[in-house]
Amino acid sequence: MVDFSKMKAAQGFFAPQRFEADVLDCETSGSIPTELDGAFVRLGGEWYYPPKFDNDAILNSDGHISSFRFKNGRVSYKSRFVRTPRFEANLKAGGQQFGYYRNPYTDDPAVQGLDRTVANTTPFAFAGRLMALKEDGLPHLIDPNTLATVGRWNFGGKYKGPHFTAHPKVDSDTGEMIAYGNEANGLAGDEVYVATIDKKGRVTHDTRFTVPYVSIMHDIALTEKHIIFPFAGYVTSSERLKAGKIHWGWDNSKESYIGILPRGAEGKDIRWFRGPLRCMMHTFHARTVGDKVIMEAPFYDGNFFPFFTNVDNSPWDRTKAKGYLRRLTFDLSSKHDGWTEEILFPTPIMDIGAIDRRYLTRDQRYVFTGFTDLSKPFNVAQGGNLQGRVTNCYGRFDVKAGQMVSMFAGETHSLAEACFIPRKGGDEGSGWLIGVASNFAEMRSELLIADAERLADGPIGRVLLPFRAAPQVHGTWVENGELPFA
Amino acid sequence: MVDFSKMKAAQGFFAPQRFEADVLDCETSGSIPTELDGAFVRLGGEWYYPPKFDNDAILNSDGHISSFRFKNGRVSYKSRFVRTPRFEANLKAGGQQFGYYRNPYTDDPAVQGLDRTVANTTPFAFAGRLMALKEDGLPHLIDPNTLATVGRWNFGGKYKGPHFTAHPKVDSDTGEMIAYGNEANGLAGDEVYVATIDKKGRVTHDTRFTVPYVSIMHDIALTEKHIIFPFAGYVTSSERLKAGKIHWGWDNSKESYIGILPRGAEGKDIRWFRGPLRCMMHTFHARTVGDKVIMEAPFYDGNFFPFFTNVDNSPWDRTKAKGYLRRLTFDLSSKHDGWTEEILFPTPIMDIGAIDRRYLTRDQRYVFTGFTDLSKPFNVAQGGNLQGRVTNCYGRFDVKAGQMVSMFAGETHSLAEACFIPRKGGDEGSGWLIGVASNFAEMRSELLIADAERLADGPIGRVLLPFRAAPQVHGTWVENGELPFA
Repeated sequence: MVDFSKMKAAQGFFAPQRFEADVLDCETSGSIPTELDGAFVRLGGEWYYPPKFDNDAILNSDGHISSFRFKNGRVSYKSRFVRTPRFEANLKAGGQQFGYYRNPYTDDPAVQGLDRTVANTTPFAFAGRLMALKEDGLPHLIDPNTLATVGRWNFGGKYKGPHFTAHPKVDSDTGEMIAYGNEANGLAGDEVYVATIDKKGRVTHDTRFTVPYVSIMHDIALTEKHIIFPFAGYVTSSERLKAGKIHWGWDNSKESYIGILPRGAEGKDIRWFRGPLRCMMHTFHARTVGDKVIMEAPFYDGNFFPFFTNVDNSPWDRTKAKGYLRRLTFDLSSKHDGWTEEILFPTPIMDIGAIDRRYLTRDQRYVFTGFTDLSKPFNVAQGGNLQGRVTNCYGRFDVKAGQMVSMFAGETHSLAEACFIPRKGGDEGSGWLIGVASNFAEMRSELLIADAERLADGPIGRVLLPFRAAPQVHGTWVENGELPFA
Repeated sequence: MVDFSKMKAAQGFFAPQRFEADVLDCETSGSIPTELDGAFVRLGGEWYYPPKFDNDAILNSDGHISSFRFKNGRVSYKSRFVRTPRFEANLKAGGQQFGYYRNPYTDDPAVQGLDRTVANTTPFAFAGRLMALKEDGLPHLIDPNTLATVGRWNFGGKYKGPHFTAHPKVDSDTGEMIAYGNEANGLAGDEVYVATIDKKGRVTHDTRFTVPYVSIMHDIALTEKHIIFPFAGYVTSSERLKAGKIHWGWDNSKESYIGILPRGAEGKDIRWFRGPLRCMMHTFHARTVGDKVIMEAPFYDGNFFPFFTNVDNSPWDRTKAKGYLRRLTFDLSSKHDGWTEEILFPTPIMDIGAIDRRYLTRDQRYVFTGFTDLSKPFNVAQGGNLQGRVTNCYGRFDVKAGQMVSMFAGETHSLAEACFIPRKGGDEGSGWLIGVASNFAEMRSELLIADAERLADGPIGRVLLPFRAAPQVHGTWVENGELPFA
């Protein structure tokens, strides 16, 4: 019995989907740029079987990868579950055998010792391979054409950590990747493993460091010279896990920490900065300018995840789950262990978005991300309770000029993460901005395509899916040639 | 550009789907009988690209095959387009190149001479093979596990007709199949080809006969001794086709014809009976009793298909598009060329349904089909204009006792064709009745499962699809072993 009737969140537009789909030649409207030859690959999570615990984190749901393949002005679509050992074990049993997020003590005895990762966070193309990433496991290789799961990948045994971040960073000049994994010395352990991997996929350097306290380390930032490791607020411990709780809680008594490690250095050389408590999940980009390291990132005021409850048992505070585009500046020449912080725009934004990856380790100007324009109409009965919480616009945020240009998705739409596609030979920000929107009115999803330099003109084209699209956390544009597309 | 915006019928629940899906382990409710080991295979048509002509017949839309695989109380689902040469040609071109239903004169020059069939009517398992059938072409073999199209099949070159009916009949005692195809001597031709194929798939006998006038011959009936060929009303001609019209028109001036051919006889031995004009599409079953041939069939009062317009240009008459369960009796010992007809039940019914196939050529008692119970509530805004036209009940019609027992599907549901699954070792009618319902309220489809001997108790179980199901004309239950299921 696969019974979702008790999952209250799984209703209407958010009803279980649990299917794998192929659309050979998608319905479209407007114009599909013929310059686009590649795929927009998306990864997210859906409960294939209902969770064992109603209050588990959606982060623990099964990875589902999907791809919009663009070629000659036509688009095909494909989606598949990531066939992790966990997914296969559940499928065989016909039900959920795994307990809370990152807590193996809550699993059924039958699956003790099995890899628990759901590989549901980031699709990443690197060194000719497509990987499904999640920070609690190793990459799963995915066939870029069939989206079939090939299996786990640890770079031929040379990546020595047990976990691999969902957000490795690739140097935009050298093509070198920096990856890492936390809890590298065991469950709730305080060690972080960091590896440098060259553009051919060979691990060329690795090291380890310990953290001031064990926390989510979801993303890093990379400059020509430095790796920046932020974390804050979330806490765990062996005792907590043995008590059968979800992996992370939020501790309002903690400070934020940001470690800066010179590239190529050993872990012991990391320098820790401390600051007031924020929720620090994703970064946008960073640069080293002389003795200064400058990072722009969409940090929240406080705990963003209601399912990672406060350890002091205080209720989750929605008003603190607000992200802003912040600039953090670290002065490496100073002995002061703090940083300066500015909020660059008054608009609360999604904490996920896109930059022009060709400029990742360079001096950057643009951030593309979603936000809610409350002045726009929201005109769908089914989505009524989402009023004010839909992401109805994408914006191009110019962090140099402090200017923002926006695209409205439509009054019945809510947007997922934006993705930037660079135009060959163009300057930073020249290209297209794409992203998937839920269309509540028609109970289906659309991929919107805009000229990234003319967002205010609105989408130039749309790919119309015949169903509610597979779930998404992150997406990536992959040029034909980066992966061997058919 | 795949643009459906101008197809008015393709809205809401009937919006284009155009996707292929896999659900590895379907959501269910109630109870799924563990005795069921096999697959419910369904075939229907959907426009992959909009038709060239707005008033074309939906019968001309692309074949889409789907399967609910039952095993150990669990159900998986799969659907695929039938990859006919026509589908492949359109996919390559990115648009519709084929004109009106069965009129090659209206095709684009690029596809002249290509097989035009869309293979969209009946899935049929025979001699270890799964076939997608449509009366304007040869069978397409389908892999029963992947639903991939293997290719056309003419029984190793031994089936000599150009077309193969969507409704071959299999003798319930010998396992022998009778198949046929009309227009066997060319477009609008008056010859019908008939073949007998043994249970191993070998053609053991074939013959030809000519018809009084060229018409749709969609279905036949089979007894231990006779093959019954009904046709009526629909007309065509070379002139009509060269004038660029859809293949069939309806001629109110015609009579109905029913040919009876002794099994194993030559075509010249067919005996034609004539009667008042009906619309005769499907049959349920028949039997030979002494000199009498008795057939039960769901014939309509008049033209059922609005897209096959009346040749006298009179408007389509919805009131005549009503089917009743009729008994037709032919006296072979009489020289009279007519038949007697009774309407067995006053309830208008769907003209498609199911019998217990173990009794196809025997004396039969039960017909299972859908009908509209107007006394039941219909409670969905989205389906409001369908009030009175939804099939909200399945009935078991006892043609011996004249009794009917019914199952109500639900006030937000409309049913497709019923399918009967026999219980091993049970008598006629012992088993399950299954069928797919559109659930307008939830914009998704369900497979309903009922105990065929306890219809009034309602469904005992449901398989809940996460989307509007692939379109269906006919479906069939295939036991594991009949086809080599994984």
